[in-house]
Amino acid sequence: MPVDDTHDPALRSWVPSANRPGSDFPIQNLPLGVFEHPMHRDRRVSVAIGDELLDLRACAEQGFFAGSLADLGAACSQGSLNALMALGRDASRELRATLSAWLRSGADGVHGWRARLEPVLIPTERVRLCLPATVGDYTDFYASVFHATNVGSMFRPDEPLLPNYKYVPIGYHGRASSVVVSGTAVRRPSGQVKRDDAMEPVVAPTRRLDYELEVGAWVGRGNTLGTSIPIGDAEEHLFGVSLVNDWSARDIQQWEYQPLGPFLAKSFATSVSPWVITFEALEPFRVPALTRPAGDPEPLAYLDSPRTRSAGAIDLRLEVSLATARMREEGLPPHVLSRSSLRHLYWTFGQLLVHHGSNGCNLRPGDLLASGTVSGPTRDSRGCLLELTWRGSEPVVLPTGEERRFLDDGDEVVLRGWCERDGAARIGLGCCRGVVIAATQVDAG
Amino acid sequence: MPVDDTHDPALRSWVPSANRPGSDFPIQNLPLGVFEHPMHRDRRVSVAIGDELLDLRACAEQGFFAGSLADLGAACSQGSLNALMALGRDASRELRATLSAWLRSGADGVHGWRARLEPVLIPTERVRLCLPATVGDYTDFYASVFHATNVGSMFRPDEPLLPNYKYVPIGYHGRASSVVVSGTAVRRPSGQVKRDDAMEPVVAPTRRLDYELEVGAWVGRGNTLGTSIPIGDAEEHLFGVSLVNDWSARDIQQWEYQPLGPFLAKSFATSVSPWVITFEALEPFRVPALTRPAGDPEPLAYLDSPRTRSAGAIDLRLEVSLATARMREEGLPPHVLSRSSLRHLYWTFGQLLVHHGSNGCNLRPGDLLASGTVSGPTRDSRGCLLELTWRGSEPVVLPTGEERRFLDDGDEVVLRGWCERDGAARIGLGCCRGVVIAATQVDAG
Repeated sequence: MPVDDTHDPALRSWVPSANRPGSDFPIQNLPLGVFEHPMHRDRRVSVAIGDELLDLRACAEQGFFAGSLADLGAACSQGSLNALMALGRDASRELRATLSAWLRSGADGVHGWRARLEPVLIPTERVRLCLPATVGDYTDFYASVFHATNVGSMFRPDEPLLPNYKYVPIGYHGRASSVVVSGTAVRRPSGQVKRDDAMEPVVAPTRRLDYELEVGAWVGRGNTLGTSIPIGDAEEHLFGVSLVNDWSARDIQQWEYQPLGPFLAKSFATSVSPWVITFEALEPFRVPALTRPAGDPEPLAYLDSPRTRSAGAIDLRLEVSLATARMREEGLPPHVLSRSSLRHLYWTFGQLLVHHGSNGCNLRPGDLLASGTVSGPTRDSRGCLLELTWRGSEPVVLPTGEERRFLDDGDEVVLRGWCERDGAARIGLGCCRGVVIAATQVDAG
Repeated sequence: MPVDDTHDPALRSWVPSANRPGSDFPIQNLPLGVFEHPMHRDRRVSVAIGDELLDLRACAEQGFFAGSLADLGAACSQGSLNALMALGRDASRELRATLSAWLRSGADGVHGWRARLEPVLIPTERVRLCLPATVGDYTDFYASVFHATNVGSMFRPDEPLLPNYKYVPIGYHGRASSVVVSGTAVRRPSGQVKRDDAMEPVVAPTRRLDYELEVGAWVGRGNTLGTSIPIGDAEEHLFGVSLVNDWSARDIQQWEYQPLGPFLAKSFATSVSPWVITFEALEPFRVPALTRPAGDPEPLAYLDSPRTRSAGAIDLRLEVSLATARMREEGLPPHVLSRSSLRHLYWTFGQLLVHHGSNGCNLRPGDLLASGTVSGPTRDSRGCLLELTWRGSEPVVLPTGEERRFLDDGDEVVLRGWCERDGAARIGLGCCRGVVIAATQVDAG
């Protein structure tokens, strides 16, 4: 294998928009996704480069994945990333090296790739981006100790953090059917809510609609039912990450969640950004796992490894913004509500994956493991309105003077994420957005 | 539409084993399933009749689904029941009428069906039965108030039944990837457990492996994300039922389940019986919903309807048996541990489905909605060992003198279910079985 120069910050692409400072998708990124072709109307695998995307099925059809790349070509000819995810990390690395070679400046002259690829390069604004993979199972974790402590202190002031938290990466099964791609409107859900002063619940549109700022890891290679994944092998099973907004109806949640956990409070929609940033692209931003405060237990052996300690986490910055209908009418940009970092997680994605499979549960390519709300230790790094407005008691004031305790109809929530440090090219995750639309009337039978 | 005579108890089949008293699969049943063909090695849709099954893809290929039956023929040519489920109840009724006409005595002479079908009739013992549908999402409810009260009284003696129980059909998302067909061995899971006398958890094979006696309803036609299902339409979206064993590791569950509900304690395996008994076949056994004790609230309007009250439940008897390795060596039959009835459920499948979709969550054909443990009011109708042995304090004694608090390696659990009443043919669900095999060594990194 030649030296991997795909991260070289000096590398430029012959696609001009990829070289624009601040672009989410320079040639060092090469995120994968699925789009609906404006002419063919079928779903195709692609890679983003600057403001354009490369149609990888067209590349396969034209024989660009020749010889030893045949398996990659076949996987890139599917309507989702699942087949590519199933191939494992060696294949991901090979695909990255191939795409980097195709798209880099110099490739136009030396190998003639530019002339071959330009016809299958499409401006991203002209296509509809789709969910990148068929999600077999969606799991949502609770990996920010700051989020868990904040929420716990609202509902259990005596015991904000339960005794299991520092041993068990707490998670629950989410709803796979309602995972939707960024840009899908989110209908305000109705459900049973019990007001504090009422004797009985009523069915009504939620009054406490919230977002949750999360990052999701896509499972690559799966494991067989009945076998677990040693922590040393975790990374082989992790393909990439996207932004996740785990929309939540807090009033429905409060009434329904005991004793089996959140259900309808979350299952109405989960938005995911369309581009999958591979773990290869994230490699320059790996950092040590969170330093546990003195007195916290060490991770149990099955969740501990030298790699986890030295480079298990990702230095990934996160931001959530809000644009109300009025703000959009007035031409105001989305207002930043909070900024956070994936470094705040108590557990790494490797630990979440290994824990998930530790009972023999089979993970499949395309399964989505979300982090849970990524809140940090400070007020301005809280990842949901429940925390940010402290259950509605401290409303957020927007540039228009509008106040928000929870989300109103017409509000658009925009999540962004990126990696940035000296000596490395910026790697962006793109964005995950969704507009809240009004509830429909509740059917009474 | 002609008069539906498919339930006539006098109806007999030209397949002799279907007419044997006590058969689960007389001609009044006609359950659907998927098998792996011993020669073709592909998955095919079939209907069970007595001890045999009819290869419905072969029927389609030979043109038996002609004319107006073409859609049915196409759906029966898939490798799972999902396409058939998606067609809705009118299609189910038409398929039932068609199969009943094909397989009934008299059809051999009049229409010559016997001669045409005999070549595509296969003894069931010669094939491998598969999971009947691809499960997009698996949801497990908690619909037996007796189970909820028993379990609640162990963990929360002060408040066995939480205030939401009688209003909200409590449920949670289960793991779809580890739903397996009856006969699949179940490996004892390992996980974090915290012994009562220990300061810290350890990772070890569960010592409290349990079964849960459940019935699962398969979703037929789906609903679009953002729309709910009125209770009056519920039955249009329900396709059929199977037996479900929601295997559970009670010690893992106890340590992990707060605050987000069961996770690894359940996700290692969920067994499902291979035959789907259609709601058409169950029609003669529809009974009024459980009479709520005086003082209980009426169901909220979105969960209430005349049909729910008069015939929302199913009079379905259930039985769970256990055969230890020693019992099997000694040639002893499985020992019946308890008998229950689906009539004990506090919520009907229609109510569970409508509640599930009430927030706009999209249900898809092939989704599995399980009842939760079907316990009745008496000791001998408790549907899991946790209840039956009261958390291990009252062991069950088996015919060999062996005792069980929870399951041992080598134990085989067998669930059975059937409908029976005067004036109607017996409708059986077949069985759902699974043998516990030993845990593998726990990887420490």
